[in-house]
Amino acid sequence: MSFKPSAISPWDKWLEMPAAPFNMAELKAARARQMQLTKPPGSLGDLEGIAIRLAAMQGTQQPELARARIVVFAADHGIAAEGVSAFPQEVTGQMILNFARGGAAISVLARSLGATLEVVDVGSVANSGAMAGVVVQKAASGTANFRHGPAMTEKQLAAALQAGRDAAERALRDDAQLFIGGEMGIANTTAATALACALLGRAASEIAGPGTGLDVAGVARKARIIDEALELHRAAITSPLEALRHVGGFEIAALAGAYIACAQMGLPVLVDGFIASAAALVAMQIRPDAPNWWFYGHASAEPGHVHLMQALDARPLLTLGLRLGEGSGAAVALPVLRLAAALHGQMATFGDAGVSQ
Amino acid sequence: MSFKPSAISPWDKWLEMPAAPFNMAELKAARARQMQLTKPPGSLGDLEGIAIRLAAMQGTQQPELARARIVVFAADHGIAAEGVSAFPQEVTGQMILNFARGGAAISVLARSLGATLEVVDVGSVANSGAMAGVVVQKAASGTANFRHGPAMTEKQLAAALQAGRDAAERALRDDAQLFIGGEMGIANTTAATALACALLGRAASEIAGPGTGLDVAGVARKARIIDEALELHRAAITSPLEALRHVGGFEIAALAGAYIACAQMGLPVLVDGFIASAAALVAMQIRPDAPNWWFYGHASAEPGHVHLMQALDARPLLTLGLRLGEGSGAAVALPVLRLAAALHGQMATFGDAGVSQ
Repeated sequence: MSFKPSAISPWDKWLEMPAAPFNMAELKAARARQMQLTKPPGSLGDLEGIAIRLAAMQGTQQPELARARIVVFAADHGIAAEGVSAFPQEVTGQMILNFARGGAAISVLARSLGATLEVVDVGSVANSGAMAGVVVQKAASGTANFRHGPAMTEKQLAAALQAGRDAAERALRDDAQLFIGGEMGIANTTAATALACALLGRAASEIAGPGTGLDVAGVARKARIIDEALELHRAAITSPLEALRHVGGFEIAALAGAYIACAQMGLPVLVDGFIASAAALVAMQIRPDAPNWWFYGHASAEPGHVHLMQALDARPLLTLGLRLGEGSGAAVALPVLRLAAALHGQMATFGDAGVSQ
Repeated sequence: MSFKPSAISPWDKWLEMPAAPFNMAELKAARARQMQLTKPPGSLGDLEGIAIRLAAMQGTQQPELARARIVVFAADHGIAAEGVSAFPQEVTGQMILNFARGGAAISVLARSLGATLEVVDVGSVANSGAMAGVVVQKAASGTANFRHGPAMTEKQLAAALQAGRDAAERALRDDAQLFIGGEMGIANTTAATALACALLGRAASEIAGPGTGLDVAGVARKARIIDEALELHRAAITSPLEALRHVGGFEIAALAGAYIACAQMGLPVLVDGFIASAAALVAMQIRPDAPNWWFYGHASAEPGHVHLMQALDARPLLTLGLRLGEGSGAAVALPVLRLAAALHGQMATFGDAGVSQ
């Protein structure tokens, strides 16, 4: 399936704004500098291209990513009622609390990396307003079950996209130099898989995976439910935004909104694994220039991820078998970007060091 | 070619000492703990196994690698006279100075990672004694050209192995929790390739690569020179140590000595790319239990590396196209080990966090 550019209605006017331009003078200077650093040309591999992009993004030959912001968007899914997850729905709210209290994987990673962590409840069924350290900006208390109808209304979709944009703006206001978006939501690999199938024109059997731990029969059942739902919504899915509205989720929409807003504001993004990449794909189909500002952290163990990476023309930095979500794969990759930046800015040139070329 | 265990003469008696044992109680406790942390079982991928090994190595459920030591061993190679490198031999000494002054890639990485960096001149032709911040422990001023005879004498081999062991002991004395060995030496991919061919029983054409930047014709010439040299030394290469002595290099021997000593002392090692892996392979053939203590940082872009990784049964953490040496690939991988340790020690359990399983 391929899409025409999204039909723009007033509420999504901001999605039309182009991505920020790169500093092309610094890009050129960075390419030249890489050839002068005391190493054989090309011997730092992918780190060289990363540093060149960061120099162009930040407009400096001393790029840095000391201040990173990690935002975990959490939401619930009506499709969870179909038994597509190995965990019960109450876990979404329990994990929101665990994020905020510092016990979750992404909490530990953020602390270890000196990154700020923000938890945004963009639509859980839990009473997260009573939890300290949680930004509550719900599009609704969970999506509708997309086996029977659209996952969300247009108004709810607008609210979820806006929640992502707001988080990106807070990150920029707090002087963040990099944005990592994570997600949590029981049954959200099902929503992400359905969205990926709609955007890629593939059957669910090509994309569906175990998520948090389904067995083979469970994956087959999940794929069947997704295919049936896609059949139900086929005529209505006339644009990327309509795909997101019919079979996506609030945290997926928030990620897409954040990725687009970051690109518009010139804030580099490190995209996480399977679910985040489904959000990135819909964001790219809405704003084709946005991916200029994105890096990809980790190749998910979820089998459909490779198709998303191909569609995004993305090569993830790491392949460590993670399949947790929360932004964890991107967080583990953050040091690679930081080190690439440090090498670019701080290595001696052949001239400085008196080394023969 | 396969080898019998090395014939042990008095000077290499220390190589016979077994590797330190793991703490098996903590290993078992770590496996159980991973199943209790607030994540789907297995969802942290390779980070889980890393953390379990680190817990067993350090004897604690709060493993950490805050204090890392990076040692770059530098030396020159007689084989450089055959024109097998894209750079002149004087660059070895120039780079030793660059390491010590903080301008080289590994200097920047060490600083960024908060790791201590030590530069050991184990056999350059340069007057490195006049350079501040360099440990000078030369086996000789460069190896002999192994196209015409053995690269080193038995006494020189013993000295180079000992230089590695001494560096490992200094790291332990300074309370290091992890050892990264790097290397620098013009023409040392030629020595490492010859050593790998001897140890793996492969032709040079299967292993030789561009090193710092040879073209196709240069690689073919390098392979021919190596094959001729291996033919010359074939009868004399009766053990891993004799392979190392006839076609290796001082920095390669020092790395092998350091890797063995670290395993004997129970100090975890993060092995770097192609040349370091050739050193690791000879070290494994000398001390088959030593690899218990090793992690592998990076899959080198040098084409022979995959054969070394197979022989070592190793899966490198990163694949970022680096081919610089200096310990740089291992250094870039260090944060992965640190984050694996932090996740293991600091995440909440299902019970702690009140999350449903």
